[in-house]
Amino acid sequence: MRDEIVVTYRIETTGSVETLAEKIASDQSTGTFTPLPGETPALKARVGARVLGVRDLGTTAEAGFGREAAGSDEPYRVGEADIAYPIEAVGVDLAALMTIAINGVYAIKGFTGIRVTGLALPSAFGTRYPGPQFGTEGTFALTGVPRDRPIIGTIVKPALGLRPDESAAMIRELAEAGVDFVKDDEKLMSPAYSSLEARVKAVMPAILDHEQRTGKKVMMAFGITAADPDEMMRNHDIVLAAGGNAAVVNINSIGMGAMLFLRKRSGLALHAHRNGWDILTRHPALGLDFSVYETIWRLLGVDQFQINGISAKYWESDASFARSYAALQRPLPPLAERPLPVVCSGQWGGQAPETIRVTGGSTDLLYLCGGGVVSHPGGPGAGVRAVRQAWEAARAGIPLETYAREHPELAASLAKFGPAPAPAEGPAPTESITR
Amino acid sequence: MRDEIVVTYRIETTGSVETLAEKIASDQSTGTFTPLPGETPALKARVGARVLGVRDLGTTAEAGFGREAAGSDEPYRVGEADIAYPIEAVGVDLAALMTIAINGVYAIKGFTGIRVTGLALPSAFGTRYPGPQFGTEGTFALTGVPRDRPIIGTIVKPALGLRPDESAAMIRELAEAGVDFVKDDEKLMSPAYSSLEARVKAVMPAILDHEQRTGKKVMMAFGITAADPDEMMRNHDIVLAAGGNAAVVNINSIGMGAMLFLRKRSGLALHAHRNGWDILTRHPALGLDFSVYETIWRLLGVDQFQINGISAKYWESDASFARSYAALQRPLPPLAERPLPVVCSGQWGGQAPETIRVTGGSTDLLYLCGGGVVSHPGGPGAGVRAVRQAWEAARAGIPLETYAREHPELAASLAKFGPAPAPAEGPAPTESITR
Repeated sequence: MRDEIVVTYRIETTGSVETLAEKIASDQSTGTFTPLPGETPALKARVGARVLGVRDLGTTAEAGFGREAAGSDEPYRVGEADIAYPIEAVGVDLAALMTIAINGVYAIKGFTGIRVTGLALPSAFGTRYPGPQFGTEGTFALTGVPRDRPIIGTIVKPALGLRPDESAAMIRELAEAGVDFVKDDEKLMSPAYSSLEARVKAVMPAILDHEQRTGKKVMMAFGITAADPDEMMRNHDIVLAAGGNAAVVNINSIGMGAMLFLRKRSGLALHAHRNGWDILTRHPALGLDFSVYETIWRLLGVDQFQINGISAKYWESDASFARSYAALQRPLPPLAERPLPVVCSGQWGGQAPETIRVTGGSTDLLYLCGGGVVSHPGGPGAGVRAVRQAWEAARAGIPLETYAREHPELAASLAKFGPAPAPAEGPAPTESITR
Repeated sequence: MRDEIVVTYRIETTGSVETLAEKIASDQSTGTFTPLPGETPALKARVGARVLGVRDLGTTAEAGFGREAAGSDEPYRVGEADIAYPIEAVGVDLAALMTIAINGVYAIKGFTGIRVTGLALPSAFGTRYPGPQFGTEGTFALTGVPRDRPIIGTIVKPALGLRPDESAAMIRELAEAGVDFVKDDEKLMSPAYSSLEARVKAVMPAILDHEQRTGKKVMMAFGITAADPDEMMRNHDIVLAAGGNAAVVNINSIGMGAMLFLRKRSGLALHAHRNGWDILTRHPALGLDFSVYETIWRLLGVDQFQINGISAKYWESDASFARSYAALQRPLPPLAERPLPVVCSGQWGGQAPETIRVTGGSTDLLYLCGGGVVSHPGGPGAGVRAVRQAWEAARAGIPLETYAREHPELAASLAKFGPAPAPAEGPAPTESITR
């Protein structure tokens, strides 16, 4: 039996879903636009892709895209196809996998929609690629946070413009307030007014001094992203040499190869910001699902994965966030670690009750608030305390408004950012998580 | 005066285009979802982005995407906004540029469409990044092709499944037929049945032997793509050490960092296959224009850029191809070289007359035929001759059917693949090129 990769595609077309599935299998392995003399049955049996099955998903009234393929009055048929690619053809290389089974399909003619919705890999990929070095378990261990609450984190704001000593002053205050994790905004890398080197030099003493006095080492993720992997490694080394233990990496802006290059040499927990991800998923008839995307980046070594959160400031829905959380919980043997879900975007603590409902009671997450902490009326320190209070209430099942009566920082957050999104009735929205 | 990067966005919304432009400028520099104490006027003046202008482009009846933002009966307003980002905030780093000015915007709420349509960079980027090493001039020099005709290339087919000795036999025949350039299919990298090392060992003697006998060195681009940049460099070194001078790189599957890593160390002409690009551009209300995309990859060092062609087998229109060709012709000072346009996808020679009309008479291109050469009834060698004949006819302004009367290989191509797309009347479609 052939060792195979199985990819699932959601296809939308005015034509036949089955025909397009067969076209994907042919175009993405041995075929081209015209029959070839060397494309023998023996060769196809060895390296050809094949359609395992097609599920009819009905019709839709609106074309996803590609009106070039759409007649005006025709219905758009939707179906999901599983296609198997032999390891013999692809090898165990993620760039080959991306090229053959994912990236290539979006060019094919005749779709009004094409989206990759599933990816099942042989365990050889998990053997070949490193996976997370400091995922969920590793990050909890490094921060010393007990497993019965989330890691509470924040972002130095304003995103751009602070000088290194201003960043350091803010981080000092956040550490005093008991924050577990701080990060540079993803937009802050190494501009002239706050070079990575100068920032590390200003900030790390605050982290280490706080550790010295309290025994608690705040995890500080510095923005080490650079287009040049050699420069990114120099940035990494600066952070590591100064006693840092984490870094923010803008994964789509550096790409797969640079991520792996960094991971192979990394001593830091790698916190992935996925800016640019939206272009790959925002249109429902185009792109790929997060479960597919995170599988690739998990293999490459992402330790902490930003996935937005309840009532995010961005376009993403709560249901989409719930699916992303569930995707990160799936095991990917033989990898030991799973990436830590980073719940973020417009968070201020008020979303804690609904978040814990989505996770089914789990607090295996980093809860990351930027403006929701930094712009707290009592200052960033009070902002951190308010978020911790919100999670205490959520874990105890106490309404935030009730808990706020004896917790003034939470009361101030509710007054400024509230009301909190009302927790929906019933158990976790498993129907959306398991789709 | 601040040194600035200017990015143009096409915005579609049921709300106000101006308001969303201001939101992009705020979100992508100093702001977040709530006002911040440190976001002072002085800080904003130093690092804040600002809207230079908004052009009204009317309304559209159909929402691009994001029906979450769209009321049912409202018109969708369309406008184009120019936003300036100071170098002080971004630095001269392409990953920072991508994160701040491009990747970040797709997450913002309230759009029914968001597309990046323009990018004007200060010359500091062209000083910082290498650009093409063997672009148009370099590739013509390496292949020894005279400047009054295109470089004629082909692709070893079937894409997958041939053993190294089978690839070598085909390349030997193609060289004999006078081909200038041969490449591995982008899906062929280093699978077990044809490892890069074994393939180079089998193929390069055919190239070098032909050079020895004829003085003509066929440029052979081997598929060196690998997810791991270290492995990709080893692949590069294998090709270079064996006397090769080119490589196929699947740029979206490796990412920006790995491309730059390779370019900094490369002795080969780097032929970019952009599989996956379609996901970033196929929906007209989402993603980015090729002119923006190619600017980034040109700076990183792409030498030869695949841009499809007339009557491509893929979804892309002839007008889109014409715009891509024009984009690659723009100078990007201070870079000396421009990437060589690679005209490809379903090409067989019949598109030569319409192609030369689109280029305004220029033959500064690599004309790449896969199945159109390999499945020629007379074999691949006859396929190469047919394509050369088609270009001779196109350059002389002789209809292909007329020229085919005395050129049997072209006649056989016309019989199998034809008829050729009829050249449109009049001059080059400049209205689409210059948009």
